[in-house]
Amino acid sequence: MYDLLNKIDGPNDLKKLNISQLERLSGEVREALFNRLTKIGGHFGPNFGVVELTIALHYVFNSPIDKFVFDVSHQSYTHKILTGRKNGYIKDECFKDDSGYTNPEESVHDFFNVGHTSTSISLASGLAKGRDLLGGKENIIAIIGDGSLSGGEALEGLNVIGSEIKSNLIVIVNDNNQSISEVHGGIYKNLELLRNTKGNATSNMFKSFGLDYKYLENGNDIESLINALKEIKDIDHPIVLHINTQKGKGYKFAEENKEAWHWCMPFNRKTGKPLYNFSGEAYVDIAKKQLLSKAKKDSKVVVVTPNMPAALGLNQDEREALGEQFVDCGIAEEQAVAMASGIAKRGAKPVVVTNATFMQRTYDQVSHDVCINNTNVTFLINYANFDGLTDVTHLGIFSYSIFSNIPNLVIYSPSSKEELLEVMDYAIDEANHPTMILLPGDKVVSREIKEDIRNINKFEVSYKGSDVAIIALGDFYSRGLALYERLKNDLGINPTLINPRFASGIDKELLDDLLKDHKLVITLEDGIKEGGFGYKISEYYSDKDICVKVYGLEKVFYDRYNPDELLKELGMDTNSMVDYISKFLNK
Amino acid sequence: MYDLLNKIDGPNDLKKLNISQLERLSGEVREALFNRLTKIGGHFGPNFGVVELTIALHYVFNSPIDKFVFDVSHQSYTHKILTGRKNGYIKDECFKDDSGYTNPEESVHDFFNVGHTSTSISLASGLAKGRDLLGGKENIIAIIGDGSLSGGEALEGLNVIGSEIKSNLIVIVNDNNQSISEVHGGIYKNLELLRNTKGNATSNMFKSFGLDYKYLENGNDIESLINALKEIKDIDHPIVLHINTQKGKGYKFAEENKEAWHWCMPFNRKTGKPLYNFSGEAYVDIAKKQLLSKAKKDSKVVVVTPNMPAALGLNQDEREALGEQFVDCGIAEEQAVAMASGIAKRGAKPVVVTNATFMQRTYDQVSHDVCINNTNVTFLINYANFDGLTDVTHLGIFSYSIFSNIPNLVIYSPSSKEELLEVMDYAIDEANHPTMILLPGDKVVSREIKEDIRNINKFEVSYKGSDVAIIALGDFYSRGLALYERLKNDLGINPTLINPRFASGIDKELLDDLLKDHKLVITLEDGIKEGGFGYKISEYYSDKDICVKVYGLEKVFYDRYNPDELLKELGMDTNSMVDYISKFLNK
Repeated sequence: MYDLLNKIDGPNDLKKLNISQLERLSGEVREALFNRLTKIGGHFGPNFGVVELTIALHYVFNSPIDKFVFDVSHQSYTHKILTGRKNGYIKDECFKDDSGYTNPEESVHDFFNVGHTSTSISLASGLAKGRDLLGGKENIIAIIGDGSLSGGEALEGLNVIGSEIKSNLIVIVNDNNQSISEVHGGIYKNLELLRNTKGNATSNMFKSFGLDYKYLENGNDIESLINALKEIKDIDHPIVLHINTQKGKGYKFAEENKEAWHWCMPFNRKTGKPLYNFSGEAYVDIAKKQLLSKAKKDSKVVVVTPNMPAALGLNQDEREALGEQFVDCGIAEEQAVAMASGIAKRGAKPVVVTNATFMQRTYDQVSHDVCINNTNVTFLINYANFDGLTDVTHLGIFSYSIFSNIPNLVIYSPSSKEELLEVMDYAIDEANHPTMILLPGDKVVSREIKEDIRNINKFEVSYKGSDVAIIALGDFYSRGLALYERLKNDLGINPTLINPRFASGIDKELLDDLLKDHKLVITLEDGIKEGGFGYKISEYYSDKDICVKVYGLEKVFYDRYNPDELLKELGMDTNSMVDYISKFLNK
Repeated sequence: MYDLLNKIDGPNDLKKLNISQLERLSGEVREALFNRLTKIGGHFGPNFGVVELTIALHYVFNSPIDKFVFDVSHQSYTHKILTGRKNGYIKDECFKDDSGYTNPEESVHDFFNVGHTSTSISLASGLAKGRDLLGGKENIIAIIGDGSLSGGEALEGLNVIGSEIKSNLIVIVNDNNQSISEVHGGIYKNLELLRNTKGNATSNMFKSFGLDYKYLENGNDIESLINALKEIKDIDHPIVLHINTQKGKGYKFAEENKEAWHWCMPFNRKTGKPLYNFSGEAYVDIAKKQLLSKAKKDSKVVVVTPNMPAALGLNQDEREALGEQFVDCGIAEEQAVAMASGIAKRGAKPVVVTNATFMQRTYDQVSHDVCINNTNVTFLINYANFDGLTDVTHLGIFSYSIFSNIPNLVIYSPSSKEELLEVMDYAIDEANHPTMILLPGDKVVSREIKEDIRNINKFEVSYKGSDVAIIALGDFYSRGLALYERLKNDLGINPTLINPRFASGIDKELLDDLLKDHKLVITLEDGIKEGGFGYKISEYYSDKDICVKVYGLEKVFYDRYNPDELLKELGMDTNSMVDYISKFLNK
C-alpha cells in the first residue's frame, strides 16, 4: 500500500523518483491522509488539494535550506508525510505525535507554529530579509490559499514585498476558488479572470502590487508543477506563482461539497458519513435558532462574519435565507468588526459571528472602531472555552484577558439556556453599548433567571450561605455548582454560590455584602487568570479583610492538552479545591 | 480676514457661494488653519492638502444626510471649520473646544471618533450596509489618503466593497504620494502609474479589487473637484475617485518638506521654525543613539517600522545610513510584527519601532506570529506613558493590559538611563524570547543597576525597610520615590521601595519575603489597573496575610486630560497616597 512512501524518510529520498513514481506517490500520500482523517478527522479539503504541489515543492527545492512557509499550515500534512513524519499518518498509534499544523518542535523542515490565516507572506518576507542580512542564498517560499488572500496581513505582505524586498521570495498562490466557505471579495473576480485568461489578463492584482507573476493552469499535475517551480527557483526578486488546484481532490464527496469537507470529523470513506453522531442540543444551536428567528422578525438584524458562519453552524440554506441580512467578509476580521460598527452607527443591528481565537485579530477594531464609539455591536463568539479547541494556535482561553479590560465593552458569559436567549435579546435589541457574548461549551442546562440582564455587572446569587463564597463564571458555573454541593456534603458548610454572568466588571455591592459573613471567596473561570475575571475580584478585596482564591489557567501557551488532566494539574479538580478550602477553614 | 468664513455656519451657507468665492474661502480656511496650528500645533500637511477637496465635498453633498468618513481624521480640520466649528480655529480661546479628530460629540456631521489609520473604508461600508437595510438613499463617502491604503484594514475594506456592497459607496483616494514619511509598498508604483497616465493605465489596483474607478488630476482645484463629485453623486455602486493633491499646499516649507510638516509644534509662520525648543536629553534620544550604534557594529541588527520612524525620531539621514538595516513597511503594523518574527527566526536581530497606540493593532501578530514561536523580536515602543498622548484614540495606558498577559513576552519598563541601555543590549543581543521595552517619558535619570537584567521578573530593591512596601513601575518609579521620601519625612516610617522593572511577571521570592515584615504593599503603574501589573501583585497576595493597594488608572477612555489633575482625581497624587497609608497604619 505504501510501497514508495515506505522508502521516503525525507525530501532527498523523493528526489530519486521519476515522474511516474511521483504520481504513484501522490496516490500513496492520499491513502495515508485517508488513514488519519477517516479515524481522527482534520483539515480534509486543503490537504487533498495540495498533494501534488507539495511533492513538486520538495522535488525541486532543497528543504530545510530552502524554506517553506505554509499559510494557516492546515494544508501541511503532505509536507509532514514527506519530511519524516509519515508515521503520524500511516500508523494509528502515532497520530498524536503530530499536530495538525507546522511545528518547529516536530521537524527542522517547519519554521513556524501557525494556525491563523494570512500570515505566510509576512513571515516569509522576514525569513527573506533575515537571509539577506546574513548573506544567505536560499529560496524562501510562501504557500498561500486564495481564501487567505483576503486577510489584511496577507495584503499588507503583498504590498511590502512588492517594493521592499529586492531578492528571492516566491509566493505560491494556491487558488482553488474556495475559502472555508465560498470566497467573498472583489479580488476573486480578478483571480477568476486570471484563471480564465491563463494568467494573461492585463488587470492583475499581483502586478498592481508591484509583483512579478506567472500562472500555472494545472496545479494538480506533478510534471507541470515541477517545470514551473524549476523556472522560478533561485529567482532574484519576489514573484507570485498563481496555480489552479482542486480543493479536496481525490475524494468525490470532498470535490463536490468543498465547504463541508474543509474540515472533517472521523468518517466512513465509502459513504462519506461521519462515524459518530452528536445528538442533543448544544448552546451553539440555541444561539443560531434564536438569531435566525430574530432576523426573520426584524430586517435590521444582520449577521456579519469573517468567513466563519461555521462558528454558529450557519449552513448555505440558512445564509441564503438571511439574504441581505448576512454579510460574509471573507477572512477579514478587521473589516468585519469595523463594518459592524458602521452598521450599528447607521441604526441597524449587527451581530458579529466567529470563533474566539480569530477575535484576537481585532483588538484594535474592537477598541478603536467599536468601543471608543460605543456602537451597539453584538459579538456572538464560539470556542472561548477551555475544552473546545486545544491547539496552541486556536486557544480561546485568552478571551477574558484580551477583551475584559476594554472600556465600554460588556462581556456576558451565559451558563444556562435562559441566560443565552435573554442576553441575545438584550444585546441585539436594547443595549446602547457593545456586548460580547461568549457561547458556553458546556452541557445545556435550563435555569430560572433571578437577576434582570439589564443590570450590568450585577451578579446573581444562586444560593446564599456563609463562610465561603464561590463565584463561578460561564462554562465553569457547573464546576462551581459541583464544588458547592461537595462543600455542603463533605465539609458540612453552607457556602454561597454566585453566577457572576458578566466577565467585564464586578458587583461591588454584592462583594461588600460578602465581607459581612464570609472568610473566603473562590473564583472560577475557564480562561487564563492574568488579566481575567478573578483578578478583578481579588484586587477589589486586596486591602479588605477577606481572602480570595482565584482558580483559572496559567499564562501559558498550552498545546493539545487533556482538559481534565490539566485541571487536575492546576489543582482545579473538585477534590483539590475541596482540599484547599478544608485546609483554609481549619487554619 | 474671514469675510466669507464669518458667514459660514454650516454646509448650507457654503452652497450659496460661487466658484470664485469658494476659491477665496479656501484662502480664508488656510488662514484659520494657520491661526490654530502656529499657536497650538497639530496635523499640518494633511489638512493644508485637502482644503479644496473638503469645500467641494460640502458643496456637492448634503452632510449630515450624506455621510463623510475621514480616514484617521487628522485631515478633518476644514470639515470642522465648515460645519459650525470655525471658532476652534479662528478664536484662540476656543482651541480646546475641538479635538484634532472627527468627534460625534462635537457635531452631527461627524460619525466616528477615529485616530487610527486605514479604518474609513470599513466604517463607511458599514454605514452603507446599514443604510441599505434601513431603506436609506444617502451617499456614503470615505476619504482616505494614499498612505493609509497600505494598512490591512483598508485593503480588506477595498476587497469587501468590491463584491459585497451593491449600492452607493464612494471612496475618495486622496493621493499626495506621501505617508507620514515617504510611502513604502508596491501599490505606490501603481498609484504613480495611474497618476502618470491620468488614470488610464490598464494595470489598476482598484479595478483589480473589483471596483469602478475615476481619476481627477488636479485635486486642489475646486471647480474640477465639484464637477468630478457631481458626476459620481448618487451613484448606485461602489466607486473609487482617485485624486491627486499636494500635501501641505499653501505653505512653502510644508510643500517642500512633507515629512517634517505632517505634524507640527507651534511655529513661526515666517520662518517655519518651532516657537519652543525642547532642550535636554530624552529617553527616546538615548534609545535612538544606542540603536544606531548597535546597528553600526552589527549588521544583523535591523529596524522594522510601520511608517513610524518618528517614534524614535529617526530622520531621513539616519534611515539612509541604516540602509538595508532599516525596513519601513508603510502603515502596516501586522506585516511589520510578523516580518520581524521571520527575521528573528532566520537569525538576524529585528527591532520593531512604533508608538504604543499602534501596537494594539498587532495583538494577534504579537501573540500568534511572535510569542507562540518565541522568536527573539525586540519591540521598542514609545508613548506607552500616561502623560504623552492624551487623545482618546492615541492612549498608551492600555499597554500593560493588552500585552502583559501574553505568554513568553517579557515586558520591561526602564526607569533610568542605565536600565534602558542595558535592557536594549540584552533584548537585542542575548534574549531567547521576545522583549517589549516601553520607553520612559519621564525626565532622564541616572541610577546604578543593582540586579542583573538577565534575571527575568526579578524586582530590584532600591531601599529595604519595613511595614510599607512601594512597588513603582517604569515611569511611575519617580512617583514611588517621591512617596517613599514623603513617608519617611511625614510619617516617620521606613518603607521599602522597589523598582519591579518587569511588567509581565512578578518576583514571588521577593513578594514572599515582604510578608515577613510588611503590612501594606503599594503598587504604582502608569496604565489602567485592570489587566495590568498591580493586579498581578494583589492576586498573588489574595489569600495571604498582607494588604495591597493598587494605584493606576481606571478602565476608561480618557480624552485630552490634564495628567496632574487626573492623578489627583484618582487619589494618586502624593498627598492622597500619604493620607491613605497614614490612615491604614493607624487603623
